[in-house]
Amino acid sequence: MSSNIVWHSHPVDQGARAEQKRQRPLVIWFTGLSASGKSTIAGALEQILTGQGYHTYLLDGDNVRHGLCRDLGFSDKDRQENIRRVGEVARLMADAGLITLAAFISPFRADRRLVREIMPEEQFVEVFVDADLSVCRGRDPKGLYAKADRGEIKQFTGIDSPYEVPQKPEVHIRAGEVPVAEAVNQLLDYLHRSGVLQAGYQPVALEA
Amino acid sequence: MSSNIVWHSHPVDQGARAEQKRQRPLVIWFTGLSASGKSTIAGALEQILTGQGYHTYLLDGDNVRHGLCRDLGFSDKDRQENIRRVGEVARLMADAGLITLAAFISPFRADRRLVREIMPEEQFVEVFVDADLSVCRGRDPKGLYAKADRGEIKQFTGIDSPYEVPQKPEVHIRAGEVPVAEAVNQLLDYLHRSGVLQAGYQPVALEA
Repeated sequence: MSSNIVWHSHPVDQGARAEQKRQRPLVIWFTGLSASGKSTIAGALEQILTGQGYHTYLLDGDNVRHGLCRDLGFSDKDRQENIRRVGEVARLMADAGLITLAAFISPFRADRRLVREIMPEEQFVEVFVDADLSVCRGRDPKGLYAKADRGEIKQFTGIDSPYEVPQKPEVHIRAGEVPVAEAVNQLLDYLHRSGVLQAGYQPVALEA
Repeated sequence: MSSNIVWHSHPVDQGARAEQKRQRPLVIWFTGLSASGKSTIAGALEQILTGQGYHTYLLDGDNVRHGLCRDLGFSDKDRQENIRRVGEVARLMADAGLITLAAFISPFRADRRLVREIMPEEQFVEVFVDADLSVCRGRDPKGLYAKADRGEIKQFTGIDSPYEVPQKPEVHIRAGEVPVAEAVNQLLDYLHRSGVLQAGYQPVALEA
C-alpha cells in the first residue's frame, strides 16, 4: 500500500461541505395555497442560483409524496407528519451544504414553526407565496379546485381545510399580482441583502 | 428591472446537478453488525473523497434517529420503516447530485433490496462490513453488547435479533481483519474500477 496522503480523523461537517461549495447552507421554505406559484417560483429561483454556481436542491410534492411520504394521506395528522419529515430532510440537505428550496402548501403555522425551530436561525427563510383563493382557482392547472368543489377531493386547503397565513415571513410575494420574474428578483434581492448570496449577482429577466 | 440574463424554463435535474459537481451520483450503502466499523470506514472514505473534491454526504444513525426517524423504535416493523425512509433520503441526496454514504446495520435482506430497487442500477453499491460477532463484542465502544447481554437492550442485532448476511454485495470488507486504511483503499479501488471516480486517484495511508 502506498502512502501519498496522511489522513487524520476529522469528520466532514456542514462547515467543510459549505466551504467546498463556497456558499452558506440555507433552507428556503415556500408556503402558500395550491396553484399560488410556489413550485414555479422555487424552480425558477433554483435555476438562476444553479446558473450562478450555487449548489441547490428543490424538495416538493413530486419527489416526496411518492417516496418518503407515500404512506401519508391528507388528514391533519398526516399533513403534520408530512411537513415534519420534509423539514427533517431539508435540515439534512442543508447539513450537506446545499441551498435547499422546499415548496409545500404547509398550511399549518405550528408545523412551519417546528421546521424553523430545528434549523439554525440564519439558515431558515420563510417565503409566503400569497395569491388569493380566487386567483388560484382561476389558474387550477391540475383541475384540483374543480375536483374539490365537486367533493371528489376532501380536506383541500382553502376549501374544506384551513390555510393559516404566515405572520412574519422573511419574504412576502404577492404572487397574484407580480410575474414570476419579479418574484425571483424579490427573492434574489432578499438573499443578497441578508448576505446569503455573494455580491455581484445580476437581476434577471425571465421568459417562462 | 434590468435584463442581463434570459431565462427559459428547464428545471434543474440530477444530470445538471451532477455535472456541476463533476461526479456521478451514487449511494454507497454500508451494512453490518453494530461495532463492525461501518461508520468509521464510511467517515474515512467520505473524508478522502471530499479531500479529492467530490461532493458527499454521510447518513447514519446520528443524524436520523433523533430527527427524521425519531418516532421509530427497534421492532422489526420499525427497523423496516427506518431503512425505508433512510433509503428514500439517500435517493433524494443522490438526486441532488451527491455521493451519498449510508451506514446502518440494516439487518434485513428484504429492506436492503428495497433500497437497491428504488435506485438506478449504476447508482447503488452495497458494502458488507463483515466482522465476527466476537470481534464486535470485543470492541463494543458504546457498551451496547454488554447491555444486550444483561437484557437491558432488547432486539439487539446478533443477540436476539437476526442479521441476514448480504449474498452479493458489490464490496465485501473483512473488517475484523483489515485496518480502516485498507478498507478505504479497497473501496477507492472498487469505485475507481467501476468508473465512479475519475482516473488519477491516489491510494491513501490513514492514521486514525
